[in-house]
Amino acid sequence: MKQEEALAFATMEQLGSLLAKRKVSPVEITEIFLRRIERLNPSLNAYLTVTAERALADARRAEKEMAGNRRSRNASRPLLGIPIALKDNLWTRGIRTTAGSKILHDFVPTEDATAARKIARAGAILLGKTHMHEFAYGITNHNEHYGPAHNPWALDRISGGSSGGSAVAIAAGLCAASVGTDTGGSIRVPSGLCGIVGLKPTFGRISVFGTIPLAPTFDHVGPLARSVPDAAILLGLLAGRDPLDPTSSPHRVENYRAALQKPLRKFRLGRPREFYWDKLDDEVRRATEAAVRDLEKHGAEIREISLPHVRDSNEAATNISLAEARRVHEAAGYFPASAAEYSEDVRQRIEAGGQVTAIKFLEGLEMRQRILAEFDAAFREVDAIVAPAVPVPAPLISAEFVQIAGERVGVRPALVGMNRPANFTGLPAMSVPCGFTREGLPIGLQLIGRAFDESTLLRIAYSYERSHDWGARHPRLD
Amino acid sequence: MKQEEALAFATMEQLGSLLAKRKVSPVEITEIFLRRIERLNPSLNAYLTVTAERALADARRAEKEMAGNRRSRNASRPLLGIPIALKDNLWTRGIRTTAGSKILHDFVPTEDATAARKIARAGAILLGKTHMHEFAYGITNHNEHYGPAHNPWALDRISGGSSGGSAVAIAAGLCAASVGTDTGGSIRVPSGLCGIVGLKPTFGRISVFGTIPLAPTFDHVGPLARSVPDAAILLGLLAGRDPLDPTSSPHRVENYRAALQKPLRKFRLGRPREFYWDKLDDEVRRATEAAVRDLEKHGAEIREISLPHVRDSNEAATNISLAEARRVHEAAGYFPASAAEYSEDVRQRIEAGGQVTAIKFLEGLEMRQRILAEFDAAFREVDAIVAPAVPVPAPLISAEFVQIAGERVGVRPALVGMNRPANFTGLPAMSVPCGFTREGLPIGLQLIGRAFDESTLLRIAYSYERSHDWGARHPRLD
Repeated sequence: MKQEEALAFATMEQLGSLLAKRKVSPVEITEIFLRRIERLNPSLNAYLTVTAERALADARRAEKEMAGNRRSRNASRPLLGIPIALKDNLWTRGIRTTAGSKILHDFVPTEDATAARKIARAGAILLGKTHMHEFAYGITNHNEHYGPAHNPWALDRISGGSSGGSAVAIAAGLCAASVGTDTGGSIRVPSGLCGIVGLKPTFGRISVFGTIPLAPTFDHVGPLARSVPDAAILLGLLAGRDPLDPTSSPHRVENYRAALQKPLRKFRLGRPREFYWDKLDDEVRRATEAAVRDLEKHGAEIREISLPHVRDSNEAATNISLAEARRVHEAAGYFPASAAEYSEDVRQRIEAGGQVTAIKFLEGLEMRQRILAEFDAAFREVDAIVAPAVPVPAPLISAEFVQIAGERVGVRPALVGMNRPANFTGLPAMSVPCGFTREGLPIGLQLIGRAFDESTLLRIAYSYERSHDWGARHPRLD
Repeated sequence: MKQEEALAFATMEQLGSLLAKRKVSPVEITEIFLRRIERLNPSLNAYLTVTAERALADARRAEKEMAGNRRSRNASRPLLGIPIALKDNLWTRGIRTTAGSKILHDFVPTEDATAARKIARAGAILLGKTHMHEFAYGITNHNEHYGPAHNPWALDRISGGSSGGSAVAIAAGLCAASVGTDTGGSIRVPSGLCGIVGLKPTFGRISVFGTIPLAPTFDHVGPLARSVPDAAILLGLLAGRDPLDPTSSPHRVENYRAALQKPLRKFRLGRPREFYWDKLDDEVRRATEAAVRDLEKHGAEIREISLPHVRDSNEAATNISLAEARRVHEAAGYFPASAAEYSEDVRQRIEAGGQVTAIKFLEGLEMRQRILAEFDAAFREVDAIVAPAVPVPAPLISAEFVQIAGERVGVRPALVGMNRPANFTGLPAMSVPCGFTREGLPIGLQLIGRAFDESTLLRIAYSYERSHDWGARHPRLD
């Protein structure tokens, strides 16, 4: 049992090493995860679909492949035998892909999303498809059709969304890593609230082909992982130009894992004067401020930077994403034909999308240019920007509001606020665990970087992660 | 008088050659044009502002510069001593720039538009600023504030717009060439109706910095000229990446004039099955069909191509440009503050821009991708596409409708229709004279090319132009 738990909470890298040394087999690891899913998923609701038989068959094939390899690991199959999960808005050929919706309850894609295909080609074993906010259009992971996902650190609390199931599955030891999507914080928010590492890369860095879209101007695919090196490995596998996605960038892909070996001796870290650090829960403030001081010890020169319009990201991005989401749902034929099949909250947003004027849309695009210029100016002074990931620990599932520094704020704006600017601008951003509240709820630190410079973000995050053991704590689930 | 008229209707190249041989001086040429402007502009209304003193001072400076040059021509000053005119929506430092509006009646820019600066640096002498539809937002050049521009081939007919004054000035021998803008046909329509050469290059080819915008997604700057070689020379001078215009492209600029010397032996010319050739005035059909047959003699293999959605360009582009124009006018502070100072037709469009939904805007962008893909497919089969520039000869100034093949069509849709697709897609397109109606009204042929392949368009146009002498006919104005 102890051994099983150690494997369930091992990083991909650790599992890869154990597999290479034949200390454990793909089938053994897969069986451990499948048993845990069987036992814990009913209370966590992390998976919408578990592909147990297929996973075991893949594990047996991986076992044969490993036995056949002369060298202990095949470089082109770096994830061989490692069980992962995919968010349920990534097309998986032959496997139901619901996007957390009733409308797509029985949708079985005939093609893989590019991200799914790349993960499969790398040899990973798919355990199943993870829970999410309906159509990724929400940050809480409340879901009328499939029930809420539960935070493994406190089952009465939300996981955050929309990649909630992915974050829960990793945090609870129900998979080694996952791939999700982030349109307004949907990777970073659940990562922060569940205490794992989540990376939203630069817009265009990872192909969105085969991802059920939410708002194409802001949609990103990215990794959720147990450690910074695992996130770096996944980013390297997923990144790159894809002819199937015209918005994907030909920008050079680095070896992000190798980059972590080059220690950052000195770097300049920007602390925004505006917005991000204004209103925080006391415990979140204490933990994130402590993390900034720790980063200072690790070579960061902290500089105050100014992003005067960053607080306007939300309104501007909302106008664009409301309209885009409405258009996506109309074009797909879901709305208005299946209007009755949406959850109330999602349908309201789709309806509101029809009211946005083109002027508001254009004003939104202008505001994006303005805020991007402010970030550009900041990045002449600093190498990355540091902020909290979420201003509060995971709210109760029943809560509609949270208290932040004595102020009552809606759960949704509270969670989205600090994450939206990076979607709005397309800049890379990640959430890294930086502590726990006294009640034992995780707290996340956000790092925001220059376009296509995920490498610096990962290196900063790694220098922090290596000197802390937040990842060694696991939720008590049995 | 004969000699004067010959100079007034000479091409830029011919003038350059005469200047180089000292057969004529910059001051002499400038005086000829200024005298003609004084005599003819009252009836043509081609110029809103004539910069006579400044032009003469510049001509004297050019004269000194030429006298000082050892070599007969300075390569960096290819337009030295050549009098040109600029459309009045291009900023000219110290010279009033009205954009044909009352709102900007007294606006004197403190900077030059990049196009204006490049023309000045090349040594051209600015005669003045040409008439235009208010804010370039119309195709007739009707203008409540400054009256209509008159077609020099029949003064009771429109010039077409919005670069109407530029086309009239060239056609009437009131300048050697001009620079205008084209958002929905505003270079090609007046060029076609006035019997000159007009080129709307690829989107991003020429900087729009310092151009008073109409709808930034579709705004282009381009040359209006007396001949294809003159258009090629101007394009070469104007083209290129400009740090002041983020939408300008770093695409390689060719020596377009030199390219004309490489004869096109064989080329494939696409004739669209849909839309362009459907409904034409009989005389326009006869002339343009004859031009296609002539091109066949000059090496063209005519192929039928299909652009199934091209007729949807208008509605889709209209939604985008309505919204963009409204946003531009709001952001500039013109609307609603100065709503009363617009012409009725322009104000109505600005008002309508507020009604466009973001969904319509997004549908427009989707339609653009679809139509662009259809053009891309066509350009795998052909090197350029041939169509009429305008389906009718210049309508009467008093007309609200024209008859096309027995059908009553509004003047505006009739003129815009065939020009809009190239603005919508950003593809280069030009209008070349291809004959006259029995009444003596010019007819234009349109060529549409691959993105950034203006060179092929110019070479095809030149092979046609060289074997005809439409340019030798001048309107009777005295």
